[in-house]
Amino acid sequence: MASEMIVNHQEKAYALLQADAEKILKLIKVQMENLTMPQCPLYEEVLDTQMFGLSREIEFAVRLGLIEVKDGKAILDKLERELSALHEASIRK
Amino acid sequence: MASEMIVNHQEKAYALLQADAEKILKLIKVQMENLTMPQCPLYEEVLDTQMFGLSREIEFAVRLGLIEVKDGKAILDKLERELSALHEASIRK
Repeated sequence: MASEMIVNHQEKAYALLQADAEKILKLIKVQMENLTMPQCPLYEEVLDTQMFGLSREIEFAVRLGLIEVKDGKAILDKLERELSALHEASIRK
Repeated sequence: MASEMIVNHQEKAYALLQADAEKILKLIKVQMENLTMPQCPLYEEVLDTQMFGLSREIEFAVRLGLIEVKDGKAILDKLERELSALHEASIRK
């Protein structure tokens, strides 16, 4: 029971971080489709703020020993690839 | 052993958050003493960024069930009181 709770903390940390990355991607999608262009400084500011928030969460989870450095980096890298694909697609429109 | 590890995650989360709050206070102290005035937009931007980072860490720890909402709020409230005392003191100089 107790050791299940530890696994749960680790799994939960990972799941929360992935959900947050997903949320950023959705936010940026909505923003691109409805509000502003990627060239808009507001767009960049929102994105920077969100990425900073996520990277602080990841760093915190690493410091707590809940996720591995490489797994945290993988979450950020994946999000950056997805955002950049989104950006490319919006330019090609 | 396993239940000690759970307590450790909670204690560690709390200790990390307090250490981060302390770090922000020190950063702002150094900045006030050496670099810029509280009226400077750069000062406010640094402070906002740091406070946002800390509040994201706290929120994340709460979502993980590692700290209580009220304890997270207490860390932020204490830091805000200390920063505002620092600000007051610098104005009176």
